[in-house]
Amino acid sequence: MSQAQGPRIGIIGTGAIGGFYGVMLARAGFDVHFLLRSEYDAVVRDGLQVNSAVHGPLKLQPVQAYRDVARMPACDWLLVGAKTTSNVDLAPLIAQAAAPGAKVLLMQNGLGVEDALRPLLPDTLHLLGGLCFICVHRQAPGVVEHEAQGAVNVAYHSGPAADAAARKAVVEEGVGLFRAAGVGSTAMDNLDQARWQKLVWNMPYNGLSVLLNSGTKGLMADAGSRALIEAMMNEVVEGAAACGHALPEGLAGKMLVATQHMQDYLPSMYHDYREQRPMELHAIYAEPLAAALANGKDLPRLRMLHQALAFLDARNAG
Amino acid sequence: MSQAQGPRIGIIGTGAIGGFYGVMLARAGFDVHFLLRSEYDAVVRDGLQVNSAVHGPLKLQPVQAYRDVARMPACDWLLVGAKTTSNVDLAPLIAQAAAPGAKVLLMQNGLGVEDALRPLLPDTLHLLGGLCFICVHRQAPGVVEHEAQGAVNVAYHSGPAADAAARKAVVEEGVGLFRAAGVGSTAMDNLDQARWQKLVWNMPYNGLSVLLNSGTKGLMADAGSRALIEAMMNEVVEGAAACGHALPEGLAGKMLVATQHMQDYLPSMYHDYREQRPMELHAIYAEPLAAALANGKDLPRLRMLHQALAFLDARNAG
Repeated sequence: MSQAQGPRIGIIGTGAIGGFYGVMLARAGFDVHFLLRSEYDAVVRDGLQVNSAVHGPLKLQPVQAYRDVARMPACDWLLVGAKTTSNVDLAPLIAQAAAPGAKVLLMQNGLGVEDALRPLLPDTLHLLGGLCFICVHRQAPGVVEHEAQGAVNVAYHSGPAADAAARKAVVEEGVGLFRAAGVGSTAMDNLDQARWQKLVWNMPYNGLSVLLNSGTKGLMADAGSRALIEAMMNEVVEGAAACGHALPEGLAGKMLVATQHMQDYLPSMYHDYREQRPMELHAIYAEPLAAALANGKDLPRLRMLHQALAFLDARNAG
Repeated sequence: MSQAQGPRIGIIGTGAIGGFYGVMLARAGFDVHFLLRSEYDAVVRDGLQVNSAVHGPLKLQPVQAYRDVARMPACDWLLVGAKTTSNVDLAPLIAQAAAPGAKVLLMQNGLGVEDALRPLLPDTLHLLGGLCFICVHRQAPGVVEHEAQGAVNVAYHSGPAADAAARKAVVEEGVGLFRAAGVGSTAMDNLDQARWQKLVWNMPYNGLSVLLNSGTKGLMADAGSRALIEAMMNEVVEGAAACGHALPEGLAGKMLVATQHMQDYLPSMYHDYREQRPMELHAIYAEPLAAALANGKDLPRLRMLHQALAFLDARNAG
């Protein structure tokens, strides 16, 4: 890590997502700093390990790790891979770690996450959304299993960029970082539309993996659950349409086929539930359901899934 | 049991339902004979025990118990309390235990159970449906826990009764048996309508108790699951209406209030699932969903519940 180049990158929330992309960027020569909490000691001692089915085993050691945000250098890019459920608590840390005019990229699922964080950040910061198409999970402190894929699609949300050209330049800079690190990345014009598109996969699979205690392979092997997933995907597409986002024709069908050919995968919500962490129900269910309903469209199966998950989440918490 | 009176009664399937009503009838002086399988030895040795929150502890010993239907005397009434999933296997036993012109009462939940059994029985037998409004479960071999309620509503399905008056007489005879045993009972004109009405409770609570691993108290304490149950009840009412059965106004609301004031209850499907027995998905979900759909009405939440339960049932079986 002696030949750092380009912008300084901070990783806020070094779980599976932050760990994977942080290690990829650091290996590509970027100057990457990791803010950690519970895993700090393990990462300082053992480094960060990514067991990647795509890139082979990757090891980063030593790691520029921090327990205290006040000790981090000011970063030009901040990649937030933490759970959406902790965004409110993270906002002051993000602001503190940011260099003037820094870009904050929320690498999270769901809808409305940038809207919720925006009022908690200084106006001088750019806020962007990053949609991560990746199968990855945290296996142990400082150890990440990367099972498949990895692309990050980037879109601008809000901030000091004066016009479309300025926004585009910021987005392209983000895309360029990932591509330089060997990670596929595409600039997206419309963040909300991109988030809806990702929800077509996340809304059915995340929740059903919890409710039916099953990975994708089991869910796709059963005719009934497969039909249910397809019906739910169509509901997401209808919800997006009600909100003014025409998603690509045949998207649900393509996702079904792709998932059928994927190795068995347990979505992040499955791990959150089993490890008794709060599930990301607000961003992944409540926000899109409310947005669709505000536009006159109820999504009964997804609402039922949300109600069932909320029941389980409350029991986990209590 | 030396002073037996009236018709001879056979109990086919001495689980919670058959055990409870059989003991109540035998205690009232009826000549009751029990066909048993796995619990035969325990019942011959220890008798039948009903721990009733309504009637106190009830004990029947000795029990007129049979492992082999060929040894049973011919019965005038046959009460079938077994799971709907075993009806096909039970049909020949029912026929064998029946006296000429006997009455067969299916004390089961769901829709279409009589239609399915009818072709497997001799035309000379009367077939009736009995809707049991009771909270009861099998606690151990020969031991039944009776938690609340107990009424049986009786309706005629098919058989040699020549006209409405003859059908009514058979139904009234059944109602009379239960009343003589201290069990509430009402004659119902329309079996299908009575079955739909009972489904308003059974479809939401049975399935959700399995899916959310919760009794009624937990399901009613959470605003989300309560709203979901209400939405599902309304779907059953819509399904019934599509099939030509206008259920009583305000039925769902009354059931919600009644369940809220009930002691915590785990429906039979919960026990079936936990003990890895097949769930009664065909009678309680597939049949009413198909009937509603055949009349142009889809019930999305109940269909989703059925799909989810079918997934769990298949995993339990495999």
